[in-house]
Amino acid sequence: MAEMIRVPAEECRSLCVQAFERNGVPPENAARAAEQFILCDLLGIPTHGVLRLSHYIGRIQVGGVDPKGKITVDKKTPALAIIDGGNTVGTAVATRATEVAIEMAREAGVAFLSVKNSNHFGANASFGWLASNEGMILISGTNGSLTMAATGGKATVVGNNPIGYAAPRKNGKHFILDFALSVQSRGKIRRAAELGEPIPEGWGLDPDGKDTTDAAAVLQGFVLPFGGHKGYGLALAVDMLSGVLSGGSFAPHVKSQFFEADEPSGICHYFICIDPEKMIGLEAFQERLEEYCAWIGAQPAADPAIPVRVPGERAGEAYLENLEIGLLVDAEHHKRNQGLADGSVKGVIPKG
Amino acid sequence: MAEMIRVPAEECRSLCVQAFERNGVPPENAARAAEQFILCDLLGIPTHGVLRLSHYIGRIQVGGVDPKGKITVDKKTPALAIIDGGNTVGTAVATRATEVAIEMAREAGVAFLSVKNSNHFGANASFGWLASNEGMILISGTNGSLTMAATGGKATVVGNNPIGYAAPRKNGKHFILDFALSVQSRGKIRRAAELGEPIPEGWGLDPDGKDTTDAAAVLQGFVLPFGGHKGYGLALAVDMLSGVLSGGSFAPHVKSQFFEADEPSGICHYFICIDPEKMIGLEAFQERLEEYCAWIGAQPAADPAIPVRVPGERAGEAYLENLEIGLLVDAEHHKRNQGLADGSVKGVIPKG
Repeated sequence: MAEMIRVPAEECRSLCVQAFERNGVPPENAARAAEQFILCDLLGIPTHGVLRLSHYIGRIQVGGVDPKGKITVDKKTPALAIIDGGNTVGTAVATRATEVAIEMAREAGVAFLSVKNSNHFGANASFGWLASNEGMILISGTNGSLTMAATGGKATVVGNNPIGYAAPRKNGKHFILDFALSVQSRGKIRRAAELGEPIPEGWGLDPDGKDTTDAAAVLQGFVLPFGGHKGYGLALAVDMLSGVLSGGSFAPHVKSQFFEADEPSGICHYFICIDPEKMIGLEAFQERLEEYCAWIGAQPAADPAIPVRVPGERAGEAYLENLEIGLLVDAEHHKRNQGLADGSVKGVIPKG
Repeated sequence: MAEMIRVPAEECRSLCVQAFERNGVPPENAARAAEQFILCDLLGIPTHGVLRLSHYIGRIQVGGVDPKGKITVDKKTPALAIIDGGNTVGTAVATRATEVAIEMAREAGVAFLSVKNSNHFGANASFGWLASNEGMILISGTNGSLTMAATGGKATVVGNNPIGYAAPRKNGKHFILDFALSVQSRGKIRRAAELGEPIPEGWGLDPDGKDTTDAAAVLQGFVLPFGGHKGYGLALAVDMLSGVLSGGSFAPHVKSQFFEADEPSGICHYFICIDPEKMIGLEAFQERLEEYCAWIGAQPAADPAIPVRVPGERAGEAYLENLEIGLLVDAEHHKRNQGLADGSVKGVIPKG
């Protein structure tokens, strides 16, 4: 059983920065990459937080990720750009892209950015949070290596491409929506297989493309997109805006950060940033959004003990709490991160 | 049993234009509104085609929709605008908005438009098709009156806000993705209730917010968003970009086109248009998209008789076929549309 401890966010951040810098990442990008981890842990998304430091450092150490890769911005118009991540740390690339998107949208009202030659970018939520803190709306998404079958297919043809929508709320508990496109994560299916428990129909297919409740068969077969053709189509749309439109790698060409860790992943993202100040004014936008959210919160819940929420409210509460009492991390992982920071421990690529 | 007949698209278009003009819609907007119907029938989406003419005309006749309402464009930057639909026919408003989005994106590379004071806008697919034919990428969505419960709620708090993604393909069978956010349409649930058949779990809740397989109970209760919190969150995100950001009506304020047909619906939409020519060039974009689609089509299908498709391929084939052999319409509806065109028949608001 993991022993969970509370560690101040700044202490965790400092370890991440040190680990990235020790492995050749320049300070500016080390700070960006660390920021993404810390934000995820603060927002209550530990699956994309400091837990991943070892994997990220491991990929630098096996030569998959270029710690010194340059991030370049190719501005096509005041509102349109392609960013080349230079195969450096994906979270640094995506955080930089978010900064550029905010800057451009502040001038042009809206910005569309497609990003190529990046790596695993963490969670949309962290970029949405950054933009929301600046009073901006952010829509984002990323492609990934092949994990899901098409509707009616029995081969993986798209990644589990997560999408995000974020908007600034007055109370700081920003509207944050961030989800992957499979019915269920491989992690949950793997746990069911380990426990020998059946999974509900519709989570995945066996290697022959047949629906099954056998978790082990799904791990050999395919995870299914949520909503059938809707999730499959969305995954394609995300890749069209990311991989196809940027000139980078789209799904069949994207490498796995687990099984091809020593090669550039070639992952691509997209960001759409909109400035509400230039539409109806930030204040008017936020007042209207508050009215909507308050109205939803006042509606009856199926279970009166569990009030109806708006996406991001829980994350906003977690942020304030975790900032106060520290990030909740596995004691072993924290020790490992200390070792990664002082160079006594090497990064490890998880089995996927 | 309905008698289905084939009628040339231009004959159907002409009836729609006449009906709209006879009811006070100026020629430019009558043509736009008709275009949306015809495109839907051509693309194999008859639920949003000429079948709806009677409802649309009915709403003008009861004073809900202003046939002479002016569509005005408030350009905030070269890439950003709010369009006021002037409470005229929603399909004319959305078609005009698509034209503006294309024009603006052609200059600025990308355009974001939020549209207020509109009415039922038809199907995203038709606007995506228009943009794709111009070599542009279109992302779109619309809010609607309250139909779905929040995750954990037992009151309707969001519309079944459909979203669309479209991109130009070289072969003219454009990438078209267009779907509503409920697990299943109310229409299908209504049919099950009429037949006394049970529905699968997860389609909807009874009035107490409890999962049920009783179709009649769901009609009294709530339709559920697809993917649980994912679909609910998406519905909110769509309304945030449409109703909240435009300064128009968001969900609790949007009126039903069925039950409040004589009032302006206040429906709002959003459009994001991107010019691939300004990114990596249209030709390069299309070549890459073709490579991706061809690769998907070459993957094994669960049933070899049903090859794996990319969204829009079926619609593209239907378009060519229906253009050639005529639109497939119910003989009764066609007669009714002839009456609406010559003024001998009045529009009828369906029961919803």
